[in-house]
Amino acid sequence: MRPTEADNMPEKGDQSYLRSRNTARILETLRQNKAFSRIDLAEQTNLDKKTVLNIVNDLFAQGMIRIMSRQIDGAGRPKEILGINGDYGRYAGIDLGGTHLSGVIVNFAGERIASNDVEVHNGLEPDTLMKLCIYLMRNLLKEAGLKEYDLSGIGISFPGFVASSQGYVTSENFPRWQNIPIQEMFQKRYNLPVCVDDCSRLMALAELWFGKGRNCRDFIVADLGFGIGCGIVIDRKIFRGSAGKSGEVGHTVVDVNGPPCTCGSHGCIESFAAGWALSRDAQSIMQKHSNTLLCETSGNSPEGVNFRQVVLAANLGDLYCADLLKKAGEYIGIGLSNAISFFNPSRLIIGGRLIQDNEIMIRAITETIQIKCMKQILDDVEITVSELGGSASAWGAGVSCILNAENLFITAMQKLKEKVK
Amino acid sequence: MRPTEADNMPEKGDQSYLRSRNTARILETLRQNKAFSRIDLAEQTNLDKKTVLNIVNDLFAQGMIRIMSRQIDGAGRPKEILGINGDYGRYAGIDLGGTHLSGVIVNFAGERIASNDVEVHNGLEPDTLMKLCIYLMRNLLKEAGLKEYDLSGIGISFPGFVASSQGYVTSENFPRWQNIPIQEMFQKRYNLPVCVDDCSRLMALAELWFGKGRNCRDFIVADLGFGIGCGIVIDRKIFRGSAGKSGEVGHTVVDVNGPPCTCGSHGCIESFAAGWALSRDAQSIMQKHSNTLLCETSGNSPEGVNFRQVVLAANLGDLYCADLLKKAGEYIGIGLSNAISFFNPSRLIIGGRLIQDNEIMIRAITETIQIKCMKQILDDVEITVSELGGSASAWGAGVSCILNAENLFITAMQKLKEKVK
Repeated sequence: MRPTEADNMPEKGDQSYLRSRNTARILETLRQNKAFSRIDLAEQTNLDKKTVLNIVNDLFAQGMIRIMSRQIDGAGRPKEILGINGDYGRYAGIDLGGTHLSGVIVNFAGERIASNDVEVHNGLEPDTLMKLCIYLMRNLLKEAGLKEYDLSGIGISFPGFVASSQGYVTSENFPRWQNIPIQEMFQKRYNLPVCVDDCSRLMALAELWFGKGRNCRDFIVADLGFGIGCGIVIDRKIFRGSAGKSGEVGHTVVDVNGPPCTCGSHGCIESFAAGWALSRDAQSIMQKHSNTLLCETSGNSPEGVNFRQVVLAANLGDLYCADLLKKAGEYIGIGLSNAISFFNPSRLIIGGRLIQDNEIMIRAITETIQIKCMKQILDDVEITVSELGGSASAWGAGVSCILNAENLFITAMQKLKEKVK
Repeated sequence: MRPTEADNMPEKGDQSYLRSRNTARILETLRQNKAFSRIDLAEQTNLDKKTVLNIVNDLFAQGMIRIMSRQIDGAGRPKEILGINGDYGRYAGIDLGGTHLSGVIVNFAGERIASNDVEVHNGLEPDTLMKLCIYLMRNLLKEAGLKEYDLSGIGISFPGFVASSQGYVTSENFPRWQNIPIQEMFQKRYNLPVCVDDCSRLMALAELWFGKGRNCRDFIVADLGFGIGCGIVIDRKIFRGSAGKSGEVGHTVVDVNGPPCTCGSHGCIESFAAGWALSRDAQSIMQKHSNTLLCETSGNSPEGVNFRQVVLAANLGDLYCADLLKKAGEYIGIGLSNAISFFNPSRLIIGGRLIQDNEIMIRAITETIQIKCMKQILDDVEITVSELGGSASAWGAGVSCILNAENLFITAMQKLKEKVK
């Protein structure tokens, strides 16, 4: 099953509520299982045949599903096997990270048809970042063989707080990104629907549809990168909290006397282990030990050193860097152990750019959780590493556009049926 | 609104699902608002009139609701004002605490018709505790003017892990309470349906129905006592986690180098601030300072000193005890600040026996949260103190029986309608 976002719509407790819920469920089932006949679909969704036939007819009329094949099964009419019609729409997803821009284009089935990255610095002005996004988008479209007018929506993944209704964003890690109208900036440039959401939450959405969250009802995705956050899935739905700010594991305090954090507090997980904190610590390593591997691999420039260079140096044998990553992993492990104690999820998925090619940190995280977490709760949770790679949040941003298209359709159908009634 | 637990039933996406959902919603609306006419009920629940009439008829036939009064409104038939029929059932709720047994009897409307307490020690054998429960129950029945056969169910609130399906309980704070078949013990003695649940969760249920959670969709209840836990409400439902073990804030780690905890880890919130940790620290205060107020008020017996005595001594001016409570409050504040960062609730309710008459600790908790929590998340949360007193979990245990009775009825009606069809 997939998040039936229809559940978040105003609850009416009547036929139209039931219908939107069932429509979302049918789309979810088709997307998860690729292909089904009408009868199998009824069985799989636990809905009655008539309901499925009606909804399938509407989805056909809209073009959201198509006949994938015909099965001849003895005498009688051949069975039509249905599936999501990928061509119904194409959506761009762009992840604005602290050290990268990452972009994908997906079709309505969620399949990635283009994928591209640009390295950036986190000190960029919003206008410069916008120019880089336009450049990235051009490359993505070229790779997919599409034109701008082929797109039906853009999803933006942002590492910070998103005031969803207005699409304004603020990040404590980007000093220049305070209350920026990012939705409007993209809408103006591309004249398309633009969805903006938190990067950890979109990472969780990607895991839910295509990653290790596919077959899981309740899980947490640790999003480890320049900043640290987590995406939380409860009962197959993204959990947002009362004001869309849930999952701030990076700013949970694990040592009252710890170093200062970008959020204004002290001893948060981020202050020990986020990408930005590793850069800070790497700088002091370079200043103290000028003949280390890190100095070589990062061209002896402490100011510009980033966490990817620390990981590389550690993998090449730099013991200072290895130790830094291990200690950071231990702090992250405590934060995630605490998350497990709060949420009692059935799975913890470790993801993000910080853990790419970073076995030292992954090991420190999982070992710390094993030590720190209560046995009774640890028994229920499977700890695993994401397989979606560094562009999971961008993929999730694309998926958010698909969900948006589905919801628009469901709402329109609801209004139509009410009118007819 | 009240938790529509029907939402947790197997989802069928059909009429019977809708009907159970709507039945729960009507009961919830009546319980929250005390009284409504049928027409007002339809408006309030956003359900159509025919649906409401049908469900109301079933609830009447069952005896769950009754006519509270008749309103004459111009000409025509007088309007019948409906309400929950409290006499439909009486339920006992018993909270097994580390330093107390607390009991209530509630009617089907959730009103408390009896309330009683017994002080206990946490070293009791299960059989002895059972005897005390029977004694408490006798007192409760006497106070309510009832006989055992007047009860329709018993709810047990337990400070530890509950294997819900079999009603076995285990607590890391009661060495003798490991895998005890508590549900069976009560069922055998009373021959009644017995519900067993975690005390912090039941505290949250009491807040949801009758306390500061009444008008709130998402909140956290901090349950501070001999142990420390929290109850979490998301979208008006109790959040349990994948295996019913959510909310273990007491065993979140805030200092890797902290003291050993009953859970086997180090530096958990409980190891600094739970009732049992305060007893430990109070003992060492008494050993070091034999002329303090605490020594006087607790009869110079360090072994038996408990957190209520620490609170009393602090209130009388014992500076060692005041300092102990303040420091403990700071650690609790960090844990709750972390909870807020994870869940982004709209309200935090501070409750439990530890904060009764304990202004020093409450102030330390709220001040620490103000300092430690990210401003962006703090802005959304209202921090408040429970008004339900020390027997909130017992009340919640009574409420759990009411919910159980509702669910049994809804399931029976579902089966009946399916048969007729």
